[in-house]
Amino acid sequence: MTTRRHFLGAASAAALTAPAILRGAATRSWAEVEKILASGNVKGRLAKDEIPTPALMLDLDLFEANVKKMVAHARATNRALRPHGKTHKCPEIAHYLVKQGAVGACGAKLSEAEVFAAHGVRGLLVTTAAVGKHKIERAVRLAGVAPDTVFCVDNAGNAQDLNDAAAAARRKVWVALDLCVSGRTGVMPGAPAVALAERVAKLPNLQCKGIQAYAGSAAHVKGWEKRRAASLSLMTPAIETRAELNKRGIGTPWLSGGSTGTYNIDSHIDGITELQPGSFLFMDTDYNVIGGKETGEVYTDFGNALTILATVVSRPTDAHVIIDSGFKAMATDRPFLPVPKDPELKFSFGGDEHGKLVSSGGALKLQVGDRVEIIAPHCDPTVNLYDRLYCTRGHAVEAVWSIAARGMSQ
Amino acid sequence: MTTRRHFLGAASAAALTAPAILRGAATRSWAEVEKILASGNVKGRLAKDEIPTPALMLDLDLFEANVKKMVAHARATNRALRPHGKTHKCPEIAHYLVKQGAVGACGAKLSEAEVFAAHGVRGLLVTTAAVGKHKIERAVRLAGVAPDTVFCVDNAGNAQDLNDAAAAARRKVWVALDLCVSGRTGVMPGAPAVALAERVAKLPNLQCKGIQAYAGSAAHVKGWEKRRAASLSLMTPAIETRAELNKRGIGTPWLSGGSTGTYNIDSHIDGITELQPGSFLFMDTDYNVIGGKETGEVYTDFGNALTILATVVSRPTDAHVIIDSGFKAMATDRPFLPVPKDPELKFSFGGDEHGKLVSSGGALKLQVGDRVEIIAPHCDPTVNLYDRLYCTRGHAVEAVWSIAARGMSQ
Repeated sequence: MTTRRHFLGAASAAALTAPAILRGAATRSWAEVEKILASGNVKGRLAKDEIPTPALMLDLDLFEANVKKMVAHARATNRALRPHGKTHKCPEIAHYLVKQGAVGACGAKLSEAEVFAAHGVRGLLVTTAAVGKHKIERAVRLAGVAPDTVFCVDNAGNAQDLNDAAAAARRKVWVALDLCVSGRTGVMPGAPAVALAERVAKLPNLQCKGIQAYAGSAAHVKGWEKRRAASLSLMTPAIETRAELNKRGIGTPWLSGGSTGTYNIDSHIDGITELQPGSFLFMDTDYNVIGGKETGEVYTDFGNALTILATVVSRPTDAHVIIDSGFKAMATDRPFLPVPKDPELKFSFGGDEHGKLVSSGGALKLQVGDRVEIIAPHCDPTVNLYDRLYCTRGHAVEAVWSIAARGMSQ
Repeated sequence: MTTRRHFLGAASAAALTAPAILRGAATRSWAEVEKILASGNVKGRLAKDEIPTPALMLDLDLFEANVKKMVAHARATNRALRPHGKTHKCPEIAHYLVKQGAVGACGAKLSEAEVFAAHGVRGLLVTTAAVGKHKIERAVRLAGVAPDTVFCVDNAGNAQDLNDAAAAARRKVWVALDLCVSGRTGVMPGAPAVALAERVAKLPNLQCKGIQAYAGSAAHVKGWEKRRAASLSLMTPAIETRAELNKRGIGTPWLSGGSTGTYNIDSHIDGITELQPGSFLFMDTDYNVIGGKETGEVYTDFGNALTILATVVSRPTDAHVIIDSGFKAMATDRPFLPVPKDPELKFSFGGDEHGKLVSSGGALKLQVGDRVEIIAPHCDPTVNLYDRLYCTRGHAVEAVWSIAARGMSQ
């Protein structure tokens, strides 16, 4: 069991960069703040305590350090890096990652990739197959806009349909074989995958670029050695399938795997050429508890850059306060609760719209109007609740980025 | 324990109105569908299997029956009905409810109420206090747009600030005392509430219109008699507080309580004048298991009108398929899982973007491209994930409503 104290040790780097509780001391009027927000030019003009809460906050110093570390690791281990856009859904972040050295971005669904492409992001890998007449039409259209987009296929009928639609549009569409290595989507490795690859190779309007094998169930295995064993065991059939295809003359230039949990595992497995982690950008409390390579029970490779800024809206008793952030402000899919940056506070959900804070030690000092920051419990579904990401350095808001692909699950 | 079979009995009314599995047989091109969707005029022009999935679906026959039942109950028991807009976040629904007899709509937060007001909804009750300089400025501005909006207050300092901002704008702002009857927001009933009411009564720019006392913890108590006892016990201090205020000459014209779980309980408690339920509109699997007044373990007063339409995107083995709907398509805050309309299917989550379906009995008939409908597990946070609500009668799409206040948690 990872204790709360252990975990807070991990979170302490984040806690040092900004005061944990900000008294609401806004002096500008809301009309002025609204004008600044609408202008899109916030740098030097907006303070953290002027942001309407609940709000999704990104600590740029921590975020940039996370990116730097992952990019350096991929470079050192000679792996391509295609971070998963389902985590951030934010074109600014996708562009920043490419500038730092990523080969592109993954999109979980077609509609997410469409948004990235419309914002000029290239090198896209759509990690779920485009299924059905309409989605296939959209995929072919997207290939017209961003021809280096790679679409996953795991089914012969779907590959045939995609080929036919591409032929009708006189277009070549790039695909990757999606292998099922962890109980989610994909064709089974081995014979079924080889049979599919051979069929795809015969389809004139598809071009196979690689293999995707995402071992989701390895990503969260607790303990680095156990996680390493899990990833090795799950990825081996994918690596063997790739070798078999190469033997048969069916080229699969790359094999994309890797998660925030396995980035420093998969990068040392021969045959995995590309990493597609996402959560490392923000680092959530869910990943904090999986254990690190050198750090034991708590995983501290990346800093907790993503928080929810909340306001105390009620203090019914001296023992607890209510904040304005509940199920609609934070992911709820994992049992691990959101963690306030202030180690003296304990959070629990109070329904759709509210959360409850109590003191873990002495008297509860929070008053109505005070602001608190809470580390995001599971970053991907948390990000998906917000339209804007407020990017800060210390107390200043440096930018407001649009989470343009928020809600794009289609 | 409510068994799955029991629950599916409750869901069967919904299952009868439309085929549980729709083969994807779209003949129109996506470009044509896009044009129809963009026009806003979909009636008679769009079929259910042309909607891009995952999609949030409203069965209009069931929805209208739910509204009819609640309106008739409120009328028969002589209670005002102000359904909670945090459930639907949809101006079309708010207007429809007023047309059917509601006195207005609740908004959980200021920003939600602002959206409703901007769409012409009146009779608003903002159920969380507007806290801090900026939110107070916005509240006073909203009172200028929709003067019959009622703002909850539970704190003397906040009431004073609201009064001063209203005075500066030469405006009278309507308020309600928010009483803490269930561990969430509000001033404690009895002496603290009386003291606050007396201070509010002296503030020249506030006018107290009533009391809000939402007993959230009674709403989901399993078993109608137990729920009745819980609500009675939680609401009694609120009713006594109101009586005390009336004795002192501080008028509180109404007392708003009631949830989907207690609508036919609170409507028989003397002193509760208004009901503010929300979930009855859609009825989710979360409420299905609380038990009914006449129906035992399963609560069948309202029909499951809200579903997620999903597509099978992968069939890695003959034993399971993967659909395109996961944590980002359905609420995850309750242990009870989403329930497919087809009673032969069992759902489990497969991460942020995917879900897994297996057969509960014989062979799994689903193929890639097939569509399934899943009853929403907890309606409020599910609705908050979508921008659009596809409204259907049978297989036809009758309207697409904007969930205009989606994400408005501020």
